[in-house]
Amino acid sequence: MSETHVIAVDLGGTYIRAGIVNPAGDLAYRTSVPTDAHDGPDIVLRRIADLIQQVAGDASLGPGVPVGIASPGPLDARTGTVHYTPNLPEWRDVPLVHRLTVATGRRIALANDGNCAALGEVAFGRGKGVRDLVYLALGTGVGGGVISNATLIDGVRGLGAEVGHMTVGLDGPRCTCGSIGCLEAYASGWAVKAEAAHVATTADGDRMVELAGDGELHAGVVAVAAREGDPAAALIINRAARALGAAMGTLANLFTPQMIVIGGGVAAIGDLLIEPAKTAMVAHSFIDIRRDLTVELSALGSDTGLYGAAALAMTKFVDRSDSGIDAVTA
Amino acid sequence: MSETHVIAVDLGGTYIRAGIVNPAGDLAYRTSVPTDAHDGPDIVLRRIADLIQQVAGDASLGPGVPVGIASPGPLDARTGTVHYTPNLPEWRDVPLVHRLTVATGRRIALANDGNCAALGEVAFGRGKGVRDLVYLALGTGVGGGVISNATLIDGVRGLGAEVGHMTVGLDGPRCTCGSIGCLEAYASGWAVKAEAAHVATTADGDRMVELAGDGELHAGVVAVAAREGDPAAALIINRAARALGAAMGTLANLFTPQMIVIGGGVAAIGDLLIEPAKTAMVAHSFIDIRRDLTVELSALGSDTGLYGAAALAMTKFVDRSDSGIDAVTA
Repeated sequence: MSETHVIAVDLGGTYIRAGIVNPAGDLAYRTSVPTDAHDGPDIVLRRIADLIQQVAGDASLGPGVPVGIASPGPLDARTGTVHYTPNLPEWRDVPLVHRLTVATGRRIALANDGNCAALGEVAFGRGKGVRDLVYLALGTGVGGGVISNATLIDGVRGLGAEVGHMTVGLDGPRCTCGSIGCLEAYASGWAVKAEAAHVATTADGDRMVELAGDGELHAGVVAVAAREGDPAAALIINRAARALGAAMGTLANLFTPQMIVIGGGVAAIGDLLIEPAKTAMVAHSFIDIRRDLTVELSALGSDTGLYGAAALAMTKFVDRSDSGIDAVTA
Repeated sequence: MSETHVIAVDLGGTYIRAGIVNPAGDLAYRTSVPTDAHDGPDIVLRRIADLIQQVAGDASLGPGVPVGIASPGPLDARTGTVHYTPNLPEWRDVPLVHRLTVATGRRIALANDGNCAALGEVAFGRGKGVRDLVYLALGTGVGGGVISNATLIDGVRGLGAEVGHMTVGLDGPRCTCGSIGCLEAYASGWAVKAEAAHVATTADGDRMVELAGDGELHAGVVAVAAREGDPAAALIINRAARALGAAMGTLANLFTPQMIVIGGGVAAIGDLLIEPAKTAMVAHSFIDIRRDLTVELSALGSDTGLYGAAALAMTKFVDRSDSGIDAVTA
């Protein structure tokens, strides 16, 4: 394969996924191994290195083919250090890039998964070619990234834009980060679940409890109930949508993006969440700023991490005139 | 004078101010004329052009000396168009840069006053040499600007970062921009005055009313009362501080700046406002992000607009190797 291919790695709490992506955005190869995070960072790093070499060997990739890694954060993309991550216990200030460079002999780029995904959207997704884009990942938590004037916003120590932890509600709910009123505390999977669990202790939650059956009362169940017209479920989703819209309005006022792309599992709720969020966004932003702004659902799905990691590696290491990515620096 | 000097213009609702600034940050000449905004944009533009030529003539500046203009917004810095501004009635989509280029024959750069001030802080103020800085102007309204990785964040149409209109309180007060819960609706001069006016209708406001006497019950009076221990005044300032701190925490989480600089008349309240705001900022931001973050009061005072306009012109037009400004692009 050509040297313009890159190896993409998506490091998650449950699986380490890897693939090969070409500049056209074809995901040519895909594999995964369990993270088994309880083994600790040394063994997990060994697993990542082995997976990279396996992918490279199977596809006959030369030693010059670089690697992009999307990892949970907070992490320092400039020094290549993962500070800590709730899903990978025992990880404290792990020099991931250094360790994997030594182990594989390859050039390694690291960024947090939300920031990677923003790069992925611009390189391969809804925002192809867009120079000013905000990506919001509504998963268990809320992550994301900001591309401003074709550059990833990563701050003084490469920590990236923590869009999930914007304060939108001064008197709002407590967030898992310790703060109060973060976007994540309203519009994440855990926040929707926590609200549903509250409601489930009352008669108002009967329909949701019934729909959940023996399973978890998660955001998907809430969405089904809301679509049926269950008022308690509708209120939970509207609460998330209102906070999401206020955050989108704030991000619009700060960055004047051309596009906001929304991904992650909670985004699968679809229009029921997105339409009221767009209405709130309009109320919370300037007319001149939102004039050309579009809001899109991500189309990269569960491969967002791999596409994002690939976009990161291409942005960092591949000659842009070959890669087709010429709009973004990271 | 050397061609590395620039002409700075600060366009305000009451006065048009102008000066000459050298790369060392010396404000060598300073003058002003009333804006008389009721005369409409054509006559005000003529006044600006005349002032520029007067400054250039008095100081024997050649035609190559460029001009930076700080103006209220929203405006489009890329096309040089002022969309509208509450303090300059009748201004709608005024092509300021084009008109002044024709009138003066000089190169003209335009940016909104908050964005200019952020550039001014990095070039000449507290943040000299800082690559990641947020500037917040707590004036009658709240403006500001963001320098991220030595670049002014100005969005897809050069509209700049509207930091005053971040939503921090989903269920907060109505803002003059039409939205709800903006930072400006808590921490601006008008917001503090509106709160004080409410309280003044009750016995709790007696001390503030007494202090105001025949004058206005503005933020300065509230601060004096709060410093004396008046509980109603303290509550007004704490409310502003809490919102300010949440916004600072959000901006930290988004941009990981090295420094937040606070200016504007309301900032003159000092520690009474800034200390609780810093406490709130810590609660509303990640420890890794705020580790190296300092919060400073601006030292540029009422010349912020002129310094900002000068920094803009130098950033845009002056060879940076001569100008001493090498950290920022706009």
